[in-house]
Amino acid sequence: MNKKVAVLMGSDSDLPVVKGAIKALRDLDITAEVHVLSAHRTPDQAGKFAAEAKANGFGAIICAAGKAAHLAGVIAAHTVLPVIGIPIKSSALDGMDALLSTVQMPKGIPVATVAIDGAENAGLLAAQILAVHDEELAAKLEEMRAAMTRDVLEKDARIQSEFNM
Amino acid sequence: MNKKVAVLMGSDSDLPVVKGAIKALRDLDITAEVHVLSAHRTPDQAGKFAAEAKANGFGAIICAAGKAAHLAGVIAAHTVLPVIGIPIKSSALDGMDALLSTVQMPKGIPVATVAIDGAENAGLLAAQILAVHDEELAAKLEEMRAAMTRDVLEKDARIQSEFNM
Amino acid sequence: MNKKVAVLMGSDSDLPVVKGAIKALRDLDITAEVHVLSAHRTPDQAGKFAAEAKANGFGAIICAAGKAAHLAGVIAAHTVLPVIGIPIKSSALDGMDALLSTVQMPKGIPVATVAIDGAENAGLLAAQILAVHDEELAAKLEEMRAAMTRDVLEKDARIQSEFNM
Amino acid sequence: MNKKVAVLMGSDSDLPVVKGAIKALRDLDITAEVHVLSAHRTPDQAGKFAAEAKANGFGAIICAAGKAAHLAGVIAAHTVLPVIGIPIKSSALDGMDALLSTVQMPKGIPVATVAIDGAENAGLLAAQILAVHDEELAAKLEEMRAAMTRDVLEKDARIQSEFNM
Amino acid sequence: MNKKVAVLMGSDSDLPVVKGAIKALRDLDITAEVHVLSAHRTPDQAGKFAAEAKANGFGAIICAAGKAAHLAGVIAAHTVLPVIGIPIKSSALDGMDALLSTVQMPKGIPVATVAIDGAENAGLLAAQILAVHDEELAAKLEEMRAAMTRDVLEKDARIQSEFNM
Amino acid sequence: MNKKVAVLMGSDSDLPVVKGAIKALRDLDITAEVHVLSAHRTPDQAGKFAAEAKANGFGAIICAAGKAAHLAGVIAAHTVLPVIGIPIKSSALDGMDALLSTVQMPKGIPVATVAIDGAENAGLLAAQILAVHDEELAAKLEEMRAAMTRDVLEKDARIQSEFNM
Amino acid sequence: MNKKVAVLMGSDSDLPVVKGAIKALRDLDITAEVHVLSAHRTPDQAGKFAAEAKANGFGAIICAAGKAAHLAGVIAAHTVLPVIGIPIKSSALDGMDALLSTVQMPKGIPVATVAIDGAENAGLLAAQILAVHDEELAAKLEEMRAAMTRDVLEKDARIQSEFNM
Amino acid sequence: MNKKVAVLMGSDSDLPVVKGAIKALRDLDITAEVHVLSAHRTPDQAGKFAAEAKANGFGAIICAAGKAAHLAGVIAAHTVLPVIGIPIKSSALDGMDALLSTVQMPKGIPVATVAIDGAENAGLLAAQILAVHDEELAAKLEEMRAAMTRDVLEKDARIQSEFNM
Repeated sequence: MNKKVAVLMGSDSDLPVVKGAIKALRDLDITAEVHVLSAHRTPDQAGKFAAEAKANGFGAIICAAGKAAHLAGVIAAHTVLPVIGIPIKSSALDGMDALLSTVQMPKGIPVATVAIDGAENAGLLAAQILAVHDEELAAKLEEMRAAMTRDVLEKDARIQSEFNM
Repeated sequence: MNKKVAVLMGSDSDLPVVKGAIKALRDLDITAEVHVLSAHRTPDQAGKFAAEAKANGFGAIICAAGKAAHLAGVIAAHTVLPVIGIPIKSSALDGMDALLSTVQMPKGIPVATVAIDGAENAGLLAAQILAVHDEELAAKLEEMRAAMTRDVLEKDARIQSEFNM
Repeated sequence: MNKKVAVLMGSDSDLPVVKGAIKALRDLDITAEVHVLSAHRTPDQAGKFAAEAKANGFGAIICAAGKAAHLAGVIAAHTVLPVIGIPIKSSALDGMDALLSTVQMPKGIPVATVAIDGAENAGLLAAQILAVHDEELAAKLEEMRAAMTRDVLEKDARIQSEFNM
Repeated sequence: MNKKVAVLMGSDSDLPVVKGAIKALRDLDITAEVHVLSAHRTPDQAGKFAAEAKANGFGAIICAAGKAAHLAGVIAAHTVLPVIGIPIKSSALDGMDALLSTVQMPKGIPVATVAIDGAENAGLLAAQILAVHDEELAAKLEEMRAAMTRDVLEKDARIQSEFNM
Repeated sequence: MNKKVAVLMGSDSDLPVVKGAIKALRDLDITAEVHVLSAHRTPDQAGKFAAEAKANGFGAIICAAGKAAHLAGVIAAHTVLPVIGIPIKSSALDGMDALLSTVQMPKGIPVATVAIDGAENAGLLAAQILAVHDEELAAKLEEMRAAMTRDVLEKDARIQSEFNM
Repeated sequence: MNKKVAVLMGSDSDLPVVKGAIKALRDLDITAEVHVLSAHRTPDQAGKFAAEAKANGFGAIICAAGKAAHLAGVIAAHTVLPVIGIPIKSSALDGMDALLSTVQMPKGIPVATVAIDGAENAGLLAAQILAVHDEELAAKLEEMRAAMTRDVLEKDARIQSEFNM
Repeated sequence: MNKKVAVLMGSDSDLPVVKGAIKALRDLDITAEVHVLSAHRTPDQAGKFAAEAKANGFGAIICAAGKAAHLAGVIAAHTVLPVIGIPIKSSALDGMDALLSTVQMPKGIPVATVAIDGAENAGLLAAQILAVHDEELAAKLEEMRAAMTRDVLEKDARIQSEFNM
Repeated sequence: MNKKVAVLMGSDSDLPVVKGAIKALRDLDITAEVHVLSAHRTPDQAGKFAAEAKANGFGAIICAAGKAAHLAGVIAAHTVLPVIGIPIKSSALDGMDALLSTVQMPKGIPVATVAIDGAENAGLLAAQILAVHDEELAAKLEEMRAAMTRDVLEKDARIQSEFNM
């Protein structure tokens, strides 16, 4: 059976950003299970979720959190599944706090960090991880890349027709 | 009975800095119990320690960690005791990563953060917290302050005799 | 008699943020005494307030200030009560100036720093400090934590029903 | 057949750091193929390597580079394999330049970024990715985690015997 | 025949900023050829464009990109024409990511970086480069400088009449 | 005769901020002469203004500029009058660029730097400099300070009546 | 009688840097009175020194401090003499903490900030302030500038003879 | 006749870094004329050099300076020749001050900025600028690029023989 991807956010206020990850996964027909789970307000539930994720059929866990963003690290501490961290920009420090709190993990417990508010890429990275052993999914990703290329070239054509008579 | 203070560090490589906190506490005759406990490598033990700390006679918990310093946050998630965070400077980013990972805690779970590598102040802050209800300890702290003042004035006298004939 | 908490702000323009601390304290039935006191425009009054705070029945002092935020440090210099600093974000530098001016205190005079604009956590931290010797308050804080957990789990349930049919 | 992991570095001066990734992989009996390939000095060879990596039996590509670290991005542009970026600290800016150049990838082309100089974690992350479909490898990773936990607990015991008589 | 200048942007969302470069060039009667070309979504087309730019009559290439701005570096890797990088400010980190990703190029492959969102200066710099061997263009640039000076002096006169009776 | 203060800005777009300095000076009956002068677009006029400022009866020069704010440094290079720099926040980097470009002057040529957009303080600093040898002005400054203190205490009284029944 | 300059440092460990200010003043025959005075450990003495400085014959006060450098602000709060702040680089954050704590002063209380560790410039700035009403000192400063120019030109001649045969 | 390149440094202490530019130019048989010229200590000589540089046969001017690095901007204000800025790392702030002071130039006066301490790239960029109209030089640059590629491939071969038996 195909692996699912968990999409966790530390607060439901992160949902508008996180939706980018959910959509990226669903566009690729990957099952995304979405949760609000806080490293600080529901530490036990978060730990339990992570510890059981592999057995529950997940292949990767995406964690979005802002400020002192500990969610990805706390989840990663309880599983050997790949954990992907999305640093969320909040009202101060322009997202730098969440970025450093997510990416600067100590030796032994990696978190695969994407750009600040980079939820779509988190979804794609999860898909790329599942695609390592799923040729059909890999083909979809290749096609998506080709579509991106075509999209840029069309924009180029449009800009050329506007600017380079 | 007097409350103890726990001094936790995420890695034993933090010990040279952390000793400043232990010494500050012991100079004030406060019992400091020292542990290596990692938010990521021993998450269950860390959570358990925090959850039982109040019952075990602790009045404050000091947590030192570097890089994506999650230890203080993870401990704070499991206790309503005051948790004091010492951001440890490591080989990159000059301690800014640990500072932001420690201080930028989300609403609901505070961490009392001191300066980067500010272990002595963490010890003193724990003492000040215990002293809120301990007049003898408060008196010791007042005396320490007076000694600091005398020390600066002596240095001033020495510098004056050197520079301001 | 129960200890009070002082809530000081360097400018009345900080009040919208600072209210988070006042509310957190009052929700826990702690007496919060609020003042505008400036480290630079009323240095003598600020120093006097701090020097007398312990005798006046305070158990902790919260200080909010922006830019070169010296208020917490100036207050801490005149008392051995725990001083909690809230760095306030102002129009430039995204709050980094206030954070560093508050947290990077020199050896001997700690300031317990919370997140930029983290006023509610400052109130909770003051409460946690008072609760070290107040079992009733500690119980209220434990209940508040349990309520936070329930709140996150309810949000999780709502999000699950929306996304994980 | 088991997937290999490519370990690319932008300059052979990165080797002392990168060795951490090679060792982590070999300790887990994963074949690591090591290359010096520069995004700027050998762009065609780098692109070709990436484009053929999947067909050549690789399951993940680790890229280490400093300063304006484009290697991971350039490799990621040519493959749908998961690409892991290690930002290398160089003589100025404390590694912040390499971190931002690696992690802040635009929509569509993710790079799984680890900590500055976090080569060992890059190796472990690659292993975790391969382990999504390799139970034997997953078991090794679980055992490694257990060993980490034991190691911290032993250090804790040693520190306790030294400090908490 | 006069050399042309290529103006490349990584995404058509950069166009509002990039127009400053196009206008600066056209005001000086320099042919600006505008393209959308992405280092990550059209790497082969970008490389090919750069490799053929000299033969196609270009004298300089301007590249605008945001976040992990690799476009200028990727273009510079394929040509010995001067490559001018415009770091574009995006939604997080205030343009610092694009600045460092553009300017911190490794030894051997320079990118002439201008200010964040400094598109007009990129156009002027390209013109100054072409003017090294084009006296007519140099004269136009000198006249533009003289006009700038007159403009500042007129503003000074206006401000003086308003403020310094 | 009393010394005048020059208030220079690099661009007339800085005027809304700079007005704070003009007002502070005029409130103290100091003659403020206002100019738009650019380090880069009118370098000769700027240099000439600075070189003649002392002879023309100025006692201090305030310079406001944003981005790579060179104006204060260029002015300081041509005079031994005290030069006060106001870093202006512009659209990127939150004013950090102007701050560092203004304050980090090399040995031999100081610039007295005030806060980002701190125009009023620049005016007050100029006044304090003139007041070193002007007792009447010093008395006005003392009275202004006393008024600030009264203003804070009134705000304190108002806040107390609102919050501390 | 000529005004003196006070040179205050927050800790005697700042002396090696601060000596640059003392020397600059003495080379210009200005009386420099040197003190160790801490904003946090001797707040009352610091305030008293500042409040009496004008009456005691000082014309400017230089304050050097590191980390959360409050000394200049605390001194400035008690005097209308010009206060010059030297941010001292300490073991973390590369001096950025001291810079922001010194320069980002709130409206009403300016501190004339010089570069990180820029003690010599602090001394020169104090001299420039005194020279506003002291033609003899102004002439010495002009001569020092001329000597600096000659020194650079001599170095230029030496480098030319080495490199530009 | 072939254009020369001027290599200016703000202080002779910058020479060890700047030598990288001189060597890069001489390796390509370009005449490099080296000067020590300070924006602040020899502003008139610097301005005069820039104003006459075009007439004196220069095709580009390289400027190296640290801290509040104004040299490139001051030179650029006096010439329409391309000006290349090398930000020099000094004792504080890790080179960020010089980078921002050099790159963040206002509209109208561009500086082509290279990496912090990136002197060799400054030399190469100057060569690339001259090569726009010099096919022989362009061919040398192409050959240098080919040599760089070969060098990386040789290092790759060596690393492969060491690691990938």
